[in-house]
Formats: sequence, structure tokens, C-alpha cells
Amino acid sequence: MRTLNVELGDRAYPIYIGEQLLEQTELYRRHIPQGTKVLIVTNETVAPLYLAAVAKALNGFDCMTLQLPDGEKYKSLDSLNRIYSMLLENNFDRQCTLIALGGGVIGDITGFAAASYQRGVNFIQVPTTLLAQVDSSVGGKTAINHPLGKNMIGAFYQPKCVISDTLTLNTLPPRELSAGLAEIIKYGLIRDSEFFDWLENHVSPILQLDSNSLSDAIERSCRNKADIVIADEREQGVRALLNLGHTFGHAIETFLAYEKWLHGEAVAVGTRMASEFSEICGWISREELQRINTLLTSAALPDKPPPGMQADDFMRLMAKDKKVQNDQIRLVLLKKIGHAEVCNDYDRDLLYRYLSRITASH
Amino acid sequence: MRTLNVELGDRAYPIYIGEQLLEQTELYRRHIPQGTKVLIVTNETVAPLYLAAVAKALNGFDCMTLQLPDGEKYKSLDSLNRIYSMLLENNFDRQCTLIALGGGVIGDITGFAAASYQRGVNFIQVPTTLLAQVDSSVGGKTAINHPLGKNMIGAFYQPKCVISDTLTLNTLPPRELSAGLAEIIKYGLIRDSEFFDWLENHVSPILQLDSNSLSDAIERSCRNKADIVIADEREQGVRALLNLGHTFGHAIETFLAYEKWLHGEAVAVGTRMASEFSEICGWISREELQRINTLLTSAALPDKPPPGMQADDFMRLMAKDKKVQNDQIRLVLLKKIGHAEVCNDYDRDLLYRYLSRITASH
Repeated sequence: MRTLNVELGDRAYPIYIGEQLLEQTELYRRHIPQGTKVLIVTNETVAPLYLAAVAKALNGFDCMTLQLPDGEKYKSLDSLNRIYSMLLENNFDRQCTLIALGGGVIGDITGFAAASYQRGVNFIQVPTTLLAQVDSSVGGKTAINHPLGKNMIGAFYQPKCVISDTLTLNTLPPRELSAGLAEIIKYGLIRDSEFFDWLENHVSPILQLDSNSLSDAIERSCRNKADIVIADEREQGVRALLNLGHTFGHAIETFLAYEKWLHGEAVAVGTRMASEFSEICGWISREELQRINTLLTSAALPDKPPPGMQADDFMRLMAKDKKVQNDQIRLVLLKKIGHAEVCNDYDRDLLYRYLSRITASH
Repeated sequence: MRTLNVELGDRAYPIYIGEQLLEQTELYRRHIPQGTKVLIVTNETVAPLYLAAVAKALNGFDCMTLQLPDGEKYKSLDSLNRIYSMLLENNFDRQCTLIALGGGVIGDITGFAAASYQRGVNFIQVPTTLLAQVDSSVGGKTAINHPLGKNMIGAFYQPKCVISDTLTLNTLPPRELSAGLAEIIKYGLIRDSEFFDWLENHVSPILQLDSNSLSDAIERSCRNKADIVIADEREQGVRALLNLGHTFGHAIETFLAYEKWLHGEAVAVGTRMASEFSEICGWISREELQRINTLLTSAALPDKPPPGMQADDFMRLMAKDKKVQNDQIRLVLLKKIGHAEVCNDYDRDLLYRYLSRITASH
């Protein structure tokens, strides 16, 4: 087992990465106060696979489970309210612990429930998708979606620990594995060119679930993310770089009403768009763009926006991005592989022409 | 104008207390970033009285208003969602400011909207009731109610400033003035016996809206509250003392479905019950209890639980209190006037007998 600490003062916490961690009672016990209630929140896809193992590990605790339907569209106020009701109906007090067992959706919604129930209770992340293990479970961003925008309601709220059992990836559909790779590639692009180089040689073993390659990629991703979160927990500055590809990607997800595409797939197309627009602005070279697109393609990720989506859809939906300031859409763009910046000073007409071109091509 | 600072490091903020503050553009401008959007959240009762003055003061800002219905039962997930929708429909970004213009309900719900919209935006409190000016606007507790319990969903989230215009109290119904007094008396009881003595001589001028007495009472209350919040922002310890009377009081409010009684009225009866039970436990004298009851009565506050409420109702509803630990209801009780403690070690049967007696008497 590898342990990585996210040093956030009195909110510091460990990330455990390794095989067969789900069933280790000791890991949970370190972070759950004695004699308190525990609610595992999971979904209908993950429960049949891993709930029994986690419940067994929590045998000594007063433990309940809530299963939500699977899917981004259930990251809603309604699902959140189901969690609150279950906690209240069963007299969960402020010492209770919520455990998120699942992917990013379960982690985000359970995290926000933990942040807001009785103004904050204990929270443990047990991510079971690659995307959640490398990104959403780390750093304390919790949220639900609103019909008018993704992740628009939420809190910065750190977990007590993250338990990443890499064996859970064995049951992950290939599309979800690729979606996780989109976020892994992002770290290489925004701040770690060495990692990008490494990924060019390791996408294939990762897709084949090679245990060492997976653990290396997860640990390096978490290290990158933790460094950024430590530097800027509440996204006043550098943390915004983690949004590479997300401004375009969130627009795609909202356009599709959080259906059909996975978050990582939207981010992959968004990353490609941000890279292409960076090249159009003359900030990265054609060769760099080529390397980026090749890597994204080798990860089996989609390469264009969904059919029917227009330039105006992008502009309208991106106007609601959380990075918007004074009606100005700020984009994370690349200055080179391994270096991203939040940009205000791009040519808006150029962006519109680029969006028209890429959305016209299908 | 009196200015009182709540020293919370990077979350420090001023409380402005005085007459005609609502209309002072400069007070708002100090705390609203240039060129950003502002949403005033208020209710149908307060809007006709004070919205015009506030809107005029905010003339130079890009400002909108949302009016909610008046009443505790609208401190709900539905109202919260109305705020989110308005913000999103109008492309409010993360630099925006929410202003709560009204009493505790408006302050609590607007504060939680500000805490959770895009994971946190600027927030200004403009309390227009005595209760909000002396209690709920100070200290960063924000919340909404759930059908199964009061203030069960929320966040600790500090405002950028509190603007308490004492002239707004001139239009306050007498019942609401008394309700505010319940929280004022609480500060005397839990930690400031000198203030309690002073109140014994000043309830009458306060009820007659004597300007000096009001300002003195508000400032002293805010000072007491700020001291506690500075010592324990997230209610890990001493802050729980502010809940004197609230465990019983919240049970009453939940029993009445947040209708009919004002929060302060429920707290007044709760305070009386906590005092009587403290006397039964032998922790305060009969004379002290007499002084407390006399003061509460002179403030024109109700003196018994609502008709129909039984001991079992109290026990069932108090079991959901946020101070509950391991199924044990913790009560704030008095050791003397000016000194309260959170107690685990009371006799549960004695409590039940007391509740049976007081609920049988009507």
C-alpha cells in the first residue's frame, strides 16, 4: 500500500493506494470515531460488486446503506435530499460518518451531503473508478448539478481519508477507464511534462490494467493534484488550471443533460479543443498539438463534440462557467506541454470561428 | 455608528450598528467588488418597507432582487433552489454578492445559498429584526430546515459585513421585538450576569424602542456572541452554550411545523424549561429561577409549551438535536445566572417527569 498525505493543516488527510484495501477494517477504523453511526452511499452498479466487502469491513460499526441510481443526472438536489432524509429518519448525529463508495458522482454528492448535514460531518472517500481515484476524490471539491449548470452548488470540504483500491478497476467498463485517463493526461499537460512523456509509453499497459502502471499513474496524478490543492485549496488561483478542458467539457455535458457521455469523455474533447485553440492562438506548436491528440486518441477517447452541438451552444453554456468573471469567459490554455495558464486575453472572435469550424465538421 | 469587529483571521468582518445605515452606499461599497453582480434576497413583508432604500443605495451596482414569502416554513430546500435558479438564469458568477435583507430566516437561507453557490460567493447581512441583529446575523451559521428537523442542512459561512440599522425596529411587530429579547436575555444567562442585571432594568425601555437602550443591548449581545464565535467558530465546544433553550425550543418549532410561533418565542419557553430543569437538578436556586422567569415574563414572552405537545413529543424531537452524541441528548443547563454548561449527566427519568408535568399543565 502506498500512502500519500495531503498536507492541509488541520484538514490534512491521507490517500491510501493499493490492492485489496476495501476490506481492511483498520483503514476505516483510523478515521471513524468509536460508537458512531456510518452511512455508506453507493449506486446500483457498484453495490453488487463491492458493497458486501465494505460492509463486512465495517462489521463492528452501526452501519446503513443508501443506493442511488447510477449516472451523472442523479447528481441532483433530489438525490441529495434522499441522503438528508435517510440521515434524519435514522437519527444520525453530528458525529456520524458518510462513506462514498463509487465514482465521481457518488463522491461529489456524498461529499456535499457530508459538508452540509448539520453543517458538516465526517466523510470518507472510497473511489471505485479511475477518474475518481485520480481526480474527484482528492482535493475536497464537492457538488451537485443544477439543471442550468454542472457542479453549480457545492462546498470545499475535505475527506478524512481516501481509500483507493486499484482492484476495483478490474470491473470498470473500458469507456470509464479511458475517461479516467483523460484526467490523468490533464496533469501531464498542465504541470508535469515528464509525466506526459511517461504516459506516451504507458497508455497501453494502463488500458490493459497492468497493476504497476496503474498504481504509478494514480499516485503521480494524486501527487500533482495534492500539490495544487495545498497551494490553493479554495481555487483563488492556480487550482483553476485543473479545469483544463473543463470549460468546453462542462458545456458538452450540460448540452447533453448529463446523459450519454461520461465526464472524462467530455473533458477529453474539451482538452483537445483547448489544445487546438492554444495552437490557433500560437501558444503551442503544431507538433505539440499532434502529440496531445495522438495521446488522447491512443486512450480511446472521443475526438469531437456531440452531433448537433453548435458554436452558440458552447458560448451560451460556457457563459455559466465558474471561472467567468464580469461576463468574460476565462479559458485554461496551454503555453506548452507541462504548462497551462488561465487566459482572459484571447481573441473572442477567433474562439467563435474555431467553435463554428469544429462543430460544423460533423 | 458603532463598529464591532469579529476577529476571525482571514474571515474577520465588521458589524455596523446605528441609525439610517441601510441607505449608506459607502458601507456596501466597502464590501462589494467593483463591477460584479448583486442579488438582494428579501421577503414580502420587508420589501415594501426597506427594499427601496437598499436598492437606491446600490444604485451603481448591477443589482437584482428576489422576494420570498415570509415565514420559517419557507426556510426550505425549495426556497433555496429558487435562489440558485435566479442566480443561474442571470449568469451570476463567483464574484457576485448576495445580500440578505430581512430577519433570521432570510439571513440563514441567503447565507447558505451564498455558502454553496459555486462553492461560495460574497455575502452581506442586513438584518431587520431584533433577533437577527443580536443573534442570527452574527457568527456565520447558515441553514435551511428539513421537514424532519430545524437547521439540519447548512454551513458555517461568515458574511463580509453585517449592517444593523436600528431604525428598522420601528416597524417591527411587538411579538418580534419580544422574540429578539429572548436571545438577548440568553447572553446574560449563559455568560454575562452584569448584562442580565442591566436587562432587569431595561426591558421596558427596549420594548418602548428607546434608541440608546436598544443600541446598548444590540452591541452587548453582538460582543458576547462574537467572543464565543471567535473562541469556537465551528461549535466544537463553548459555542454550544448559545443553544441554551434551543433544544427544547427547536422541538417546539418542529412540533408546530415552523408555524404559529416565532423562533424567539420557542427559545423563550425553552429557556424557561432549561432554567426550571436546572433548578430541579439543584444547579440554580429557586430565587435565581424566579428572577429568570420574571425577566422573561416582563419581555412579554410565552411561558409554556404549545397546547397538545406531550413529553414524548419533546423526547422524540429532541433526539434529533445537533448536540446529540451517541443517542444521548445533551442539554445546556445553568449553574448560575451568567454561567451555563453543556450537560450529559442529568437524570433522564427526572427530565421525563419534568416534561410530563409541564406538558400536563394545560
